Amino acid sequence: MLGTASQVPTQRRNHNALFLRWDALGVLFDPGEGTQRQMAFAGLAASQITHICITHFHGDHCLGLASLVQRISLDRVAHPVEIHYPASGQVYFERLRNASIFHDLADIVPRPFGGEGVTGPLELFATEEARLVAYPLDHRVECWGYRLEERDARRMLPERLAALGLRGPRVGELQRAGVLEVDGRQIRIEEVSEPRRGQRVAVVMDTRPCDGARALADGADLLVCESTFLSSEAEDAHAYFHMTARQAGELARDAGVRRLVLTHFSQRYGASQPFADEARAVHADVVAADDLVTVAVPKRHD
Amino acid sequence: MLGTASQVPTQRRNHNALFLRWDALGVLFDPGEGTQRQMAFAGLAASQITHICITHFHGDHCLGLASLVQRISLDRVAHPVEIHYPASGQVYFERLRNASIFHDLADIVPRPFGGEGVTGPLELFATEEARLVAYPLDHRVECWGYRLEERDARRMLPERLAALGLRGPRVGELQRAGVLEVDGRQIRIEEVSEPRRGQRVAVVMDTRPCDGARALADGADLLVCESTFLSSEAEDAHAYFHMTARQAGELARDAGVRRLVLTHFSQRYGASQPFADEARAVHADVVAADDLVTVAVPKRHD
Repeated sequence: MLGTASQVPTQRRNHNALFLRWDALGVLFDPGEGTQRQMAFAGLAASQITHICITHFHGDHCLGLASLVQRISLDRVAHPVEIHYPASGQVYFERLRNASIFHDLADIVPRPFGGEGVTGPLELFATEEARLVAYPLDHRVECWGYRLEERDARRMLPERLAALGLRGPRVGELQRAGVLEVDGRQIRIEEVSEPRRGQRVAVVMDTRPCDGARALADGADLLVCESTFLSSEAEDAHAYFHMTARQAGELARDAGVRRLVLTHFSQRYGASQPFADEARAVHADVVAADDLVTVAVPKRHD
Repeated sequence: MLGTASQVPTQRRNHNALFLRWDALGVLFDPGEGTQRQMAFAGLAASQITHICITHFHGDHCLGLASLVQRISLDRVAHPVEIHYPASGQVYFERLRNASIFHDLADIVPRPFGGEGVTGPLELFATEEARLVAYPLDHRVECWGYRLEERDARRMLPERLAALGLRGPRVGELQRAGVLEVDGRQIRIEEVSEPRRGQRVAVVMDTRPCDGARALADGADLLVCESTFLSSEAEDAHAYFHMTARQAGELARDAGVRRLVLTHFSQRYGASQPFADEARAVHADVVAADDLVTVAVPKRHD
C-alpha cells in the first residue's frame, strides 16, 4: 500500500497508490502524486512494474503517472509497460505521458478501454495464467474497478500419482495433454487431481456501493476497497460518491471476500483503527491500511 | 527548503522545491513532484502562495505544479496566484495546469516570459517594495534563475529626528514626501536618514557557472544554488550542465553573497555535510540543505 490518502495528502498519508506483485506481474494501481518516492521507501524499482491500471482521472489517482513514465525511461526499463485507463480520459493520459521535458526511452503501451455506452465487464488482458477484467463503478466521473483472476487449474494428488507410478516429466506430460497412457490404459487428469480454483484480487475505488463493486468483489481472495468515510459521515459518502468503512465491510461479507483492505481515507480522520473497527463489525478479516504496509493475498484454502 | 533532491528522489530527499516568505509575498520556486505533501510537513498552506516561479521544465522542477493548482482550487484560495515560467515551456505549463479532472476555481495568472532570442535580464514584476528579475542560465534546456530585490530605501536616524522634534505622523509625512517644513525650514529626508540597501535573494538552478548566475548572485544576502555534484564528479557536472558545491562556493565568494544555501543534490550522495565542507573551503556562510530545513535571510548589516 504505497499511499492511503484520498483527495488531500497528510503528514501520515501520501496520495493513493498500491502495487500488486502477482507471479511475474507487477501491477501498479492508481499512482497518485508522489508514488515514485513512496516506491523508494518501499524498496520497489520502476523495473518491477509491468502494468499500470488507472481507475479514473481525479488527481489523487493519476498525477503520479507523469514522473513514473519518466522514471521508467530514466531507468531504461527493458520491457513494455501497459497502461490501462478509461478511454474517456485519453486527453489526461496524454498530458501526463508528456508532462515535462525528458529524453523519452520508455516503452509505454497505452491501453484505453471502454468508450461511449460501454458498460463492461471488459477483459483487458488474458494470459495462460491470469486475466484482468474491469467493471464500471459509480463515481462522479467515469471510474472502473479492476479484478485480476488466476486461471482455475487442477491440483495433482500425490498418492494417486504414486499408485500409478507416475512422477517427474510424465506428470508434466499429463498436465499439458490432460491424458496419458499408463501401462496400456488411458489415464485422464481428473483421475489424479482435483479442481484448484484460481485466486482473485479486486480493486474497488472510487464509488458508491453498486453492481460493479459487487461483481469485482465476488469471491475475491483479497479486496482492496476505498472507504473514504466512517458511517458517521455516511451522508457525505453518498453525496460525494464514496463508501464508508461499514459499506466496504458489507460488500466484502456479501461477496464472500476473504481479506478486505481498506484505503483512501479522508484527511479529516487520523488513525486507521476506527475504519478497521467499523468494517470488522460485519467482516472478520480486515486490514485498514497505513502507508507502506504490505498485505499478503491469503493462502489458498486447502 | 521543501525538497532537496535532483532528478531522482530518495528516502532522504523529496524532489526539489523551496518556498520564500518575503513580507506579504509567498514565492514558491520549482515545485517538483510531491511539493504539496512537503508543504503539509512544513505546515504551509496553499493560501500562503502568491507566486510560483519555474526555472525550467524538467520534471523535478515542475511536476508538482499539477496538484498545487488543484489544491489552490480546492482550498478556494481567494487571491490570484501568478505563475512565472519560460515561454518556451508553454505546452508543459498547459498540461500541468489541467493535468487531470478537477472543479477549477483557481485564480491562476500565467506569466510566461522570454521567447526566441530574448536574453534578459527581465523584470517580471515590480511593486513599491520589491521587484522580481530573471536571468538566463546555462542548462541543457532553456532555464532562468530568479532574483527578488527589495527596493533601496532610507533608514531614519532617531537622534537627528529628535533634534528637530520630529516624531510619529510627521516622520511618516517626511518619508512619503521626501521633504517637510519644520519651524519654517525645509527639511529634506537626506538630512535625517541614511541610505538603506534593499535585501536580495537569488535562486540559481540548474546551470553550469555562467554570466547569468553571477548577475543573479551579485551582492545577494541569500543565494540558493544548485550543487548537484561534488568536485570529485566535476566532469559529470560539466557534461550534464550542473554545478559542483565548490563552484557554488566560488560563485558566492566572487559575487559577495552573504549566505549560500546548497540544494539539488544527486541521488548518488547521502548526507549534506560533504557539500557544505566543499563550499566552506571558499565561502564562510554555507547551509547544505536537508528537506524541511528553514533558512533565514541574514539580517541587515547594520
